[in-house]
Amino acid sequence: MSQFSQAEHQWMANALQLAEKGRYTTSPNPNVGCVIVSAQGELVGEGWHQQAGGPHAEVFALRQAGDNAKGATAYVTLEPCSHYGRTPPCAEGLIKAGIKRVVAAMQDPNPQVAGRGLQMLQDAGIDVQVGLLKSQAEALNAGFIQRMTQGRPLVTLKLAASLDGKTAMENGHSQWITSEQARLDVQRERAKSCAILTGSGTVMIDDPMLNVRLDANQLGIDTPVVRQPLRVIVDSRNQLTPEYRLFSLPGPILLANKSVSPHLYPKQVRQWHCQEKGKRVSLPALLTHLAESGVNNLWVEAGAALAGALLEYKLVDTLMLYQAPKIMGDKAKGLALMPSLSHMQQAIALRWQDIRQVGEDLRLTAQVVYPSSQTE
Amino acid sequence: MSQFSQAEHQWMANALQLAEKGRYTTSPNPNVGCVIVSAQGELVGEGWHQQAGGPHAEVFALRQAGDNAKGATAYVTLEPCSHYGRTPPCAEGLIKAGIKRVVAAMQDPNPQVAGRGLQMLQDAGIDVQVGLLKSQAEALNAGFIQRMTQGRPLVTLKLAASLDGKTAMENGHSQWITSEQARLDVQRERAKSCAILTGSGTVMIDDPMLNVRLDANQLGIDTPVVRQPLRVIVDSRNQLTPEYRLFSLPGPILLANKSVSPHLYPKQVRQWHCQEKGKRVSLPALLTHLAESGVNNLWVEAGAALAGALLEYKLVDTLMLYQAPKIMGDKAKGLALMPSLSHMQQAIALRWQDIRQVGEDLRLTAQVVYPSSQTE
Repeated sequence: MSQFSQAEHQWMANALQLAEKGRYTTSPNPNVGCVIVSAQGELVGEGWHQQAGGPHAEVFALRQAGDNAKGATAYVTLEPCSHYGRTPPCAEGLIKAGIKRVVAAMQDPNPQVAGRGLQMLQDAGIDVQVGLLKSQAEALNAGFIQRMTQGRPLVTLKLAASLDGKTAMENGHSQWITSEQARLDVQRERAKSCAILTGSGTVMIDDPMLNVRLDANQLGIDTPVVRQPLRVIVDSRNQLTPEYRLFSLPGPILLANKSVSPHLYPKQVRQWHCQEKGKRVSLPALLTHLAESGVNNLWVEAGAALAGALLEYKLVDTLMLYQAPKIMGDKAKGLALMPSLSHMQQAIALRWQDIRQVGEDLRLTAQVVYPSSQTE
Repeated sequence: MSQFSQAEHQWMANALQLAEKGRYTTSPNPNVGCVIVSAQGELVGEGWHQQAGGPHAEVFALRQAGDNAKGATAYVTLEPCSHYGRTPPCAEGLIKAGIKRVVAAMQDPNPQVAGRGLQMLQDAGIDVQVGLLKSQAEALNAGFIQRMTQGRPLVTLKLAASLDGKTAMENGHSQWITSEQARLDVQRERAKSCAILTGSGTVMIDDPMLNVRLDANQLGIDTPVVRQPLRVIVDSRNQLTPEYRLFSLPGPILLANKSVSPHLYPKQVRQWHCQEKGKRVSLPALLTHLAESGVNNLWVEAGAALAGALLEYKLVDTLMLYQAPKIMGDKAKGLALMPSLSHMQQAIALRWQDIRQVGEDLRLTAQVVYPSSQTE
C-alpha cells in the first residue's frame, strides 16, 4: 500500500506532465513541474521550469496561487532548491507563501541541494513527504541525475540499420535506410538533447548538418527560438576543414582533437584538446568535459568505429536503433566495430525499454547492461 | 457494408478456430473447419479436418448434426470437395443431408476442386455464398494455396541474431544467442511445418537434430504421436556422413545432392539428385520437388550461405527473425551472404506481419517483397 492517496498520485502526475513541457528548453537545468492544491482539494496554481535563468516551477505556481497558497499543498517533481543561484531559493518562497505541506517526487541530486531544501521546509514546520512517483521523476531527468551523480552525461547511441544490422552498402551508399518518419523522430530526439556527438569519419562521408530543423511550432513549444544542441565532433587527427556544412550553420560546435587545428574555424567553433596520451581523443575525458560544460543528455550519431569505441569503453547508457524492414546482405557495412569476442557471455547485453513502430521502421530502445564485474 | 451479418461472421470465426486445431496434423491437406447452424440459429454440428486420409471437417459436422442438418446452414472455411479422393465428396454429403445453405470462406485452390464443389451444391439447389472472412481463411492455408497455385511450398526463413545482425562469434561460438523461450517457440514452428530445410554446413558445425521435441500434450493435440517434419538437407558435394546426429533419429530425411552419396545411410534417408548443371543443388528445382511431395510449409534453419542463396533466388516468402537484446560486434558472423549491392533500392524489402516479444527476445515476422519487375 502506498502512503499516498489516488488524488495525490494524480496531482503529482499533473506536475510531471507540466515538467515535461520543458524537455526541449530547460537544460542544463532539470525539468521540474509544480502543482499547488488548496486544503479544499482545488488546483490553485501550476508552473513548470521553462529555461535556465528563468523562474523555477514553484515561482510560477506560487504567483498563480497568490493568497490561495496559504494552507495549501505543493506537489513538486523535484526537491525545491535551497541555494541562491540565478533565482532565490524556492524553499524560502514556499515558506513565505504559507504552504502547509510539500510532496516531492524525489530529492535533488544536485550536491548544492541534496536534501537541504527539504530540511529548510521541515525546519519551518512544513509537513514534507518524498517519493511519490519517484521512478517517473527520475526517468524525466535521467541525464541531469547522471551528470550530478556520476559527472558524465547520459549517452544515447542512435543507430539506423537494416534487419541484418547493416548501415550502408559496401560502396558507402546509405541514403536512406530508414523512412522519413524515422528521420523526423530523430529530429525530435536531437531537440531533446544538450549535445550531439559524431566523428570526423561521418562528417567526411555524409557531410551532415547535425542540427535541429524543426521549428518551435513543430516541437510544440512556446519559446520562439529552438535551441540548437552543441555539436561535438571527435576529430583526433585534425582531418576536418571548415568547408564542411555543419561549420557554417548557426549553433555552437566543440571540436575535440589532440592539438589545435591548422585551419581557421568560425568563432562558434571551440576546440578542446585531449591531454591524454594515445592515438585518439580520450572518450571518457571528453564526456567528463561535456558534463562540466552542463551537458545532461548526449545524443550520438556516429559511424561503426566511434559507436564501437563508445560501447567498448562502456560509455553508452541507451541504444536507440531505428530498424528498417530490409535485408542488405553480409557485404554491407556493420553497426559497431568491436574487438572479436569468443564467447556469447562477452556480448554486450541490453534490456528493452521501449519498442515501437515509427513509420515503416521499428524503433528499439534498450538500456545497455554492463556486467558489474567488468565495470571500469 | 458486408453482405454477411454479425452472427454469420461469428459462425465463420468459429469454423476458422476449429480449422486451426489441425495445424500440426493435416498436411499435406489444408486446415478446414465446419460449423452447422439450424434455421433457428442454433449450433447443431461442428467438425475439423484432423489428418490426411481421415474424414473431412464436413463429415464430422454432419455426423454430429444428424437430422438437424435438414434446412440448416453450413459454414465451411474452404469450398467442400467435389472429387472422390480417400473419402467421398463432401459436397455430396451436404446435399444428401439436406443442407439448405452453404457459406464458404474461400474457393478451393486445388485444381481438382476449384469451384466444382460449389457448382455441385448450386446445381442441387443449395444457396451458396463465398468470401466470408476470406483473408483469414487464406492466411490459415497460405502454404497449401501456394503449393496448389504456384507449385512450390511457402518458405519461412528462420533466423536468430543479435541486434547488430550477428549469428555467431568469429570463432563459430553461437550457443545460445536467443533465450530458452525463443527456442521453445521454434519447436512449435517446426511442428507446424511439413519440412525443415538446412545445409550441410550447419549440420557439420552444429550437429542439430532438427526434429520436434514437444509431445502431443505440449502442442495441445489429441493424436498421440507428433508428426516429425521431413528433414531436408542440401549437401551438394556429399560432405556429410551418416554419423551426424540427425540421421539416427526417427523421421524421414531427404538428402539433396548432385549424385548419390558414397555413404550408406539408414533407410529413412531418401536421396534426391539435382539434374541441373552448376556447382550446387538447384534450389528452385528442390522446392518444386518438395511441392510435388506434398510439402505446403517449408521451415528453413540455415546458415548465412543457404539463407543468402534463398533470398537471392527470391524463394523466401516469410522471414522470422528472433532478435536477441545483444550486440556482438562487427567481427562476428552475419545473417545472409549475398552479392554486394550498390544502391539502397536493391536491398531486399520486407513488410511487417507480426512483432512480438518471446521471452527476452523480439520475434519479427515479415513478408519478403520482391519488386515485380525483378521477378524471375
